[in-house]
Amino acid sequence: MASVGFIGLGNMGGPMAANLLAAGHAVRCFDLVPDLVAQSVAVGAQEAPSAAAAATGVDVLISMLPASPHVEALYLGEDCILPAIDPSTLVIDSSTISPSSARKVAEAAAARGVAMLDAPVSGGVGGAVAGTLTFIVGGTADALARGRPLLEAMGGNIFHAGDAGAGQVAKICNNMLLAVQMTGTAEALALGVQNGLDPATLSEIMRKSSGGNWPLEVYNPWPGVMDGVPASNDYDGGFLTRLMVKDLGLAMEAALETGAATPMGALARSLYAGLANQGLGDKDFSSIQKLFD
Amino acid sequence: MASVGFIGLGNMGGPMAANLLAAGHAVRCFDLVPDLVAQSVAVGAQEAPSAAAAATGVDVLISMLPASPHVEALYLGEDCILPAIDPSTLVIDSSTISPSSARKVAEAAAARGVAMLDAPVSGGVGGAVAGTLTFIVGGTADALARGRPLLEAMGGNIFHAGDAGAGQVAKICNNMLLAVQMTGTAEALALGVQNGLDPATLSEIMRKSSGGNWPLEVYNPWPGVMDGVPASNDYDGGFLTRLMVKDLGLAMEAALETGAATPMGALARSLYAGLANQGLGDKDFSSIQKLFD
Amino acid sequence: MASVGFIGLGNMGGPMAANLLAAGHAVRCFDLVPDLVAQSVAVGAQEAPSAAAAATGVDVLISMLPASPHVEALYLGEDCILPAIDPSTLVIDSSTISPSSARKVAEAAAARGVAMLDAPVSGGVGGAVAGTLTFIVGGTADALARGRPLLEAMGGNIFHAGDAGAGQVAKICNNMLLAVQMTGTAEALALGVQNGLDPATLSEIMRKSSGGNWPLEVYNPWPGVMDGVPASNDYDGGFLTRLMVKDLGLAMEAALETGAATPMGALARSLYAGLANQGLGDKDFSSIQKLFD
Amino acid sequence: MASVGFIGLGNMGGPMAANLLAAGHAVRCFDLVPDLVAQSVAVGAQEAPSAAAAATGVDVLISMLPASPHVEALYLGEDCILPAIDPSTLVIDSSTISPSSARKVAEAAAARGVAMLDAPVSGGVGGAVAGTLTFIVGGTADALARGRPLLEAMGGNIFHAGDAGAGQVAKICNNMLLAVQMTGTAEALALGVQNGLDPATLSEIMRKSSGGNWPLEVYNPWPGVMDGVPASNDYDGGFLTRLMVKDLGLAMEAALETGAATPMGALARSLYAGLANQGLGDKDFSSIQKLFD
Repeated sequence: MASVGFIGLGNMGGPMAANLLAAGHAVRCFDLVPDLVAQSVAVGAQEAPSAAAAATGVDVLISMLPASPHVEALYLGEDCILPAIDPSTLVIDSSTISPSSARKVAEAAAARGVAMLDAPVSGGVGGAVAGTLTFIVGGTADALARGRPLLEAMGGNIFHAGDAGAGQVAKICNNMLLAVQMTGTAEALALGVQNGLDPATLSEIMRKSSGGNWPLEVYNPWPGVMDGVPASNDYDGGFLTRLMVKDLGLAMEAALETGAATPMGALARSLYAGLANQGLGDKDFSSIQKLFD
Repeated sequence: MASVGFIGLGNMGGPMAANLLAAGHAVRCFDLVPDLVAQSVAVGAQEAPSAAAAATGVDVLISMLPASPHVEALYLGEDCILPAIDPSTLVIDSSTISPSSARKVAEAAAARGVAMLDAPVSGGVGGAVAGTLTFIVGGTADALARGRPLLEAMGGNIFHAGDAGAGQVAKICNNMLLAVQMTGTAEALALGVQNGLDPATLSEIMRKSSGGNWPLEVYNPWPGVMDGVPASNDYDGGFLTRLMVKDLGLAMEAALETGAATPMGALARSLYAGLANQGLGDKDFSSIQKLFD
Repeated sequence: MASVGFIGLGNMGGPMAANLLAAGHAVRCFDLVPDLVAQSVAVGAQEAPSAAAAATGVDVLISMLPASPHVEALYLGEDCILPAIDPSTLVIDSSTISPSSARKVAEAAAARGVAMLDAPVSGGVGGAVAGTLTFIVGGTADALARGRPLLEAMGGNIFHAGDAGAGQVAKICNNMLLAVQMTGTAEALALGVQNGLDPATLSEIMRKSSGGNWPLEVYNPWPGVMDGVPASNDYDGGFLTRLMVKDLGLAMEAALETGAATPMGALARSLYAGLANQGLGDKDFSSIQKLFD
Repeated sequence: MASVGFIGLGNMGGPMAANLLAAGHAVRCFDLVPDLVAQSVAVGAQEAPSAAAAATGVDVLISMLPASPHVEALYLGEDCILPAIDPSTLVIDSSTISPSSARKVAEAAAARGVAMLDAPVSGGVGGAVAGTLTFIVGGTADALARGRPLLEAMGGNIFHAGDAGAGQVAKICNNMLLAVQMTGTAEALALGVQNGLDPATLSEIMRKSSGGNWPLEVYNPWPGVMDGVPASNDYDGGFLTRLMVKDLGLAMEAALETGAATPMGALARSLYAGLANQGLGDKDFSSIQKLFD
């Protein structure tokens, strides 16, 4: 069993740390919010008095923070924790951040001889609690081999996308495509229903045809077509619209950096930003269906 | 075995008629192009001297024509064949046309006591030859039951989308979604590759994640990622860009009729129209990838 | 002074006929709604018992109807009025319809030796009442010369766009561009305000710079920037969103016919259709600003 | 007459410095490229041995650099010139950069008691040479009053957009709108021509109607419609596509920061990025017309 430092115990980090504890690992945890620390301590974690303390003398350090600025502050800022990290420690950042931030942090770590993985997740809070997250990992194969037992304690699928930053790139490409096909699915369903079709029948035909996609398989956006999905629960729960707006923003940043043309992805970002601005930011992202009623 | 009239013996209709013959049905065929008639006669069909002759006294009449005006001329024009059709004959139009045209034709047939199905196909020339077409059918359940043995002689999957015109609606919704997700997939792959990822690795990650869709399963648009697809054959063969432009045009017409907002579908149409205008109309529709190189 | 037949006395046609009367022309009028006929009679028109009666024995026949089907029914339908029109009569259709409908009607008229102009207007109800409409005219120069005195009695600017149908083409191109630049203006204003700018200051800078356009000159979409525009009157009055949706639909039809790629125009149509579907169809089209609040 | 430090003597900065000299100001200049310094010296400037030397002891310091990173390095980097600037010196940065970069730099200057203006320009190389640039200025009214005589020596119109950063915001809003309406104009012209209209006639009709905008007034994108514009010179000269891509990127960054929905602007960025990727990056931005041929 490994000794693990864990920084960031929010909706995602808290249950991830709990699953590490449940798998028998020793976890030293830190968060700026004392209540979150207390919750982790209540399930067996040890409290670290500072981020640097959580990072010192552990086999693996895991961070799970909201966005690029937080991760850059933690690893690159004036009082950053890098000097406190032992070269023998593997660092895994599971935050979803920009690939360029991920690369900068990994380079700074490497300059101190510290191996680092970017390992953003998909699967949401539900997956974090159930220990079924998907990790999309950037970094060396060696580092991934070292981190794999820990990742397996927190998730199911583990993909190796490439070198440092590649995990972030693959995640934002995937989520951009997801936003496009969720919107396209919602449009197609609305067009069919407005032209007299039953949404369940049309969903089934497209699912088995060349229109088949992940939303039609497990996450149908039309209310009532599928049980147990946000669309059938007033779009509550699931993957929030405002988080999709954030991920699409990361995709657009990546496109700006390379001069990529992403007409569909850019349109999806504007539609999702509009949806959030209309007050649906805290609803599931399949609520894009409401734009086409 | 049934007696079948078959009108329209082009790239699709010819092999469809051949499969009916191979299944033991008697086929009386007509086309304005004598060579096409000769090809069907060579595999066992009987030549009809006119469309009306092909339509008279058969159990089932099948038509397979390029577009709405041809179908309207055949069934609604001044010298249309409706008067020649016996009320006991089932009419199946497998052309891809506008839902409103399909409904108009079905209503005119019904007014003469003739049952009609709109049964557009997917699967392309390859599916027509192999007898593995998918039929998406609009019309009554009774009429579909009568037509099913014939459809099964020409194809694999048969979906009942709803009443008259519903087959056309479902097909154009599906193909609109297909165009959207093919374009979105091409964008995501290009964005990933420009940011350092391997296209095969990224394809595999998205295929197994929430970005999963039909193109990633069987029709990857990036050259070399998948064997045997048009993308790996200089985008030759497959489903031509100009036919996708046609289908997207039908989707837009349906959207105009009902006032539907289809931002993604409309953008896909413009991107595909631009692709065709740049000379790729006769390439496979996955060549949309070239817009994002 | 001319004898004029006038068919279609709605919000636009009524005041247009009144201006002809005010200019001293004799007007014989018809509408399916008796109240509308009564209003025209009250200001000096003569009532015609039928459309054909209004069309018979006049120097000029003017029609002002809602959409293509009405115009086709009037001039091409089973009981159409073409046989009642004298070859010496000039026909002016001021309805906004599809170019292909306009050309079909003009051809049918020509086949009977009747000269015809398509002369759609811009300027709205206000322009119709004030007699300041703009006419965008398709047809021969000779026919336009004959019709000009009448058009001048109803409007200010008269443009000759080209042959039959060209008036319709020019109008829908103009209105597509108008929708694009109104939306672009609304986006730019919202982006500026969200980044701390004053909307009036930003409007003035763009108006005098390369962002200058008609909306910034006379029709600013941001409430309060400009006096006397719909935006400063809760978006009441002006050019209704649902009429813009109609005109964008005509633009899309024209694009479908020629295979034109119109990504901006197509996006504008979907945004305007969405606006109408959200209940703003009867507000001025500058209310697109609300999508970007 | 003022003593001026000038950093950045490229296509824009060189002629701007020359106009200051022509107006009688003393200019001390610096650039990393010796040849550019030599050109300024040849028209009367004094050479500064370093950026800091150019910035020391002058009444006004002007910088004209390619992008945000250069400006941040100059004013915020490790060896930045801020310590070398006297509090009595007014700093004017005329680079086009992100509003957030402009605000960061202005804040750092203010912390040292140095007043600063962000004053991006429009008008291109031609305007820089002719001394007819437009300046869109952010900063205090006092600072603008101090800088105005210098700005007037280099340009014609001077707009005060608001506080620090507002000049950048107003410029990118304007240029986003410009890209949208240039693209919309190109689409409308292509749609009209494909439907039989003459491009010059259609341009004139739209120019005088509600489609009127800056491109139709002075910068028509259709070859041959207007003399002396890039479209009539194989799209050479003018405002390069790759610079428009850069400005649209800044607009997208601003939209990402505030969560703004900019569907038209985002689509314009993708279309322009695609145009640049197809090899037209060094052509004038009105070459977007080529996408719609």
